[in-house]
Amino acid sequence: MRKVNLAEKLSMFDDHWHPRIVGELNGQHVKLVKLLGAFDWHHHDEEDELFLVVKGRFRMELRDGTIDLEEGELFIVPRGVEHRPVAEEEAHVMLFEPASTLNTGNLRTEKTRERLERI
Amino acid sequence: MRKVNLAEKLSMFDDHWHPRIVGELNGQHVKLVKLLGAFDWHHHDEEDELFLVVKGRFRMELRDGTIDLEEGELFIVPRGVEHRPVAEEEAHVMLFEPASTLNTGNLRTEKTRERLERI
Repeated sequence: MRKVNLAEKLSMFDDHWHPRIVGELNGQHVKLVKLLGAFDWHHHDEEDELFLVVKGRFRMELRDGTIDLEEGELFIVPRGVEHRPVAEEEAHVMLFEPASTLNTGNLRTEKTRERLERI
Repeated sequence: MRKVNLAEKLSMFDDHWHPRIVGELNGQHVKLVKLLGAFDWHHHDEEDELFLVVKGRFRMELRDGTIDLEEGELFIVPRGVEHRPVAEEEAHVMLFEPASTLNTGNLRTEKTRERLERI
């Protein structure tokens, strides 16, 4: 039982689109990830996914619109909904999602990260 | 599908120890709560509970120690672990926990809030 300082954990890695696990509860993972550029369009069949902006900003593209997210804002992508995060500048994001969640959802691409580290 | 601005939601209420629901995913709730003073000692039999400090600071008292939490820090209280949040000054906190979670856990006290509003 240790506390987690988000800024300290975020200082431990530099790469983009590569989530790290920083907490686990009730079968869900808390992850941190740095975004830069455009991710792949994907969806998750079984998992709703929460994005909370810790630093910076990004936009969540959906097939029928775009949500602009700033620091201190969160957005929940329901299961089945296609989405693509895009960050014009680096953004730091906390994710909250089931432990089963694959970052690229229904796809396997060069951005897929299969076994995430705990930091 | 709407984004949630934490500061905006926090401006919608003033009372303490009265969580509001601001999101739901995978059977879990995202809640916001304002802390001031000492809560009741309690535990949750079936639920792990995450506290993330959005503003201010508080301490989580456990039977075998105390965790001081600052803005940008989170702490997960595992199910079964007795705890008591104490805030010397007002603190704003985001909670992630199963939708089944009662704020006072195994107890019903004057601080118990049974049916939480969604804001």
